Amino acid sequence: MAFTSVQKIRFDDVDGAGIVYYPQFFHLCHAAFEDFFDSAAPVSYPQLVRERRMGFPTVAIESSFSAPLVYGDVAVVELTVERMGSTSVTFGYVIRRKRDGAVCFRARVTTVLVSIDTMKPMALSAEYRSLFERLLSTKK
Amino acid sequence: MAFTSVQKIRFDDVDGAGIVYYPQFFHLCHAAFEDFFDSAAPVSYPQLVRERRMGFPTVAIESSFSAPLVYGDVAVVELTVERMGSTSVTFGYVIRRKRDGAVCFRARVTTVLVSIDTMKPMALSAEYRSLFERLLSTKK
Amino acid sequence: MAFTSVQKIRFDDVDGAGIVYYPQFFHLCHAAFEDFFDSAAPVSYPQLVRERRMGFPTVAIESSFSAPLVYGDVAVVELTVERMGSTSVTFGYVIRRKRDGAVCFRARVTTVLVSIDTMKPMALSAEYRSLFERLLSTKK
Amino acid sequence: MAFTSVQKIRFDDVDGAGIVYYPQFFHLCHAAFEDFFDSAAPVSYPQLVRERRMGFPTVAIESSFSAPLVYGDVAVVELTVERMGSTSVTFGYVIRRKRDGAVCFRARVTTVLVSIDTMKPMALSAEYRSLFERLLSTKK
Repeated sequence: MAFTSVQKIRFDDVDGAGIVYYPQFFHLCHAAFEDFFDSAAPVSYPQLVRERRMGFPTVAIESSFSAPLVYGDVAVVELTVERMGSTSVTFGYVIRRKRDGAVCFRARVTTVLVSIDTMKPMALSAEYRSLFERLLSTKK
Repeated sequence: MAFTSVQKIRFDDVDGAGIVYYPQFFHLCHAAFEDFFDSAAPVSYPQLVRERRMGFPTVAIESSFSAPLVYGDVAVVELTVERMGSTSVTFGYVIRRKRDGAVCFRARVTTVLVSIDTMKPMALSAEYRSLFERLLSTKK
Repeated sequence: MAFTSVQKIRFDDVDGAGIVYYPQFFHLCHAAFEDFFDSAAPVSYPQLVRERRMGFPTVAIESSFSAPLVYGDVAVVELTVERMGSTSVTFGYVIRRKRDGAVCFRARVTTVLVSIDTMKPMALSAEYRSLFERLLSTKK
Repeated sequence: MAFTSVQKIRFDDVDGAGIVYYPQFFHLCHAAFEDFFDSAAPVSYPQLVRERRMGFPTVAIESSFSAPLVYGDVAVVELTVERMGSTSVTFGYVIRRKRDGAVCFRARVTTVLVSIDTMKPMALSAEYRSLFERLLSTKK
């Protein structure tokens, strides 16, 4: 079960070579992550961060880039969960361009639940385990 | 007396038309503003914001754009003070491109000293009045 | 007749003082401008720029900031046309935050239609005059 | 032999949790990559892209994040070359924060030399092989 977020490539997303600047792909992933919280989580990511003082900073990334996005493209960002640990969640992202369905980007992004005030890891509660289980990819 | 900050245009500063994205000019101004604090203020702007919990949010802008910057340009940002009120400072910015000296951008940016916790205006102390007086342009 | 675009404030839109970085307000305006093209123009703004090699660079801005946006806010960006010249269009932007309707930002942004290859002004065609006339604010 | 680029964390580099937004670490890497070209390459990266119509798009990343950067930090970005293929170069990046020397980030970023017009891989010339050999890390 994947969550999908659709995002327009904006005028400033490109670089001096006329394609989407590669760090911007991670921004598209984060926007999809926030949209997933908006659609399914107990509280939005802004509320989690600002009110509950918790967050999911990224600790590791493996990613590959296979086709460029250009200005005018629409990015279809697919989010799954690849693995859950006691305090960590590894998300899988695939970004396709809408015009032809080509896969542009894949990433495995490992995050850890932390207290924002101490930056120490916290155990995932049952509430969050169940939230992320919905996105667990079966093919690992 | 102007303060000058020199900044490289980076790979991601351009837009889909191949020139520097116009909101980015204000970012160049803010970087010059921070550099001025680093060079001359009692504390750096990060310290002012994080430790003293004060800041200078922008309340008004008038600006004009007269020539583009492209990837590979170097921006020469000149900062002056046009006016000081009891709680406000109006900065003047001129951005030239280094390769030919052409003026690309001019702005008058009015800021107000506030407490970050309350967002209420605060009177400029003697210390800050004297800091900004150094940059007062004589020709208004 | 105004065009309205609704945009989430994202995790990276804030600055070191915890509010939306002021240059980002102009980015919200540009996104609304692109959305207006998507909804009503003969071709999208990416197509105008990439295929027809035309664009509307900004030449002047007057703006005021009256309330902050924070992470978690939703920005409601209203776009009108304040004035049309032979080659120029002045847009009016008002940004409100959705949670309380407070006006956060107003701007008057003057753009000129140019050829991207020469950066020379071009006369607005009847097609574009009629596009922008729909957004002409009556109260000037 | 490493190349080192020192970069201030700017007011807008932080996210809603008050630390540097993780995609921004890749932007710091790209800035160091551009600075290396400025300091040692036959032509600057802007000239390579704009005049020679070549570039080094990223095709794969492995990275880990071990400590946060905050507003006011200075990032010390170290660039080495881990591997050279016939058309590809794998760069190693380590980002430390200046205040305490803590390693915040490590990445292995694989790029391929391409023609910007065709996006097809090109063989690295002797000139570029010799440029990157200077940064070859001995401990692989």
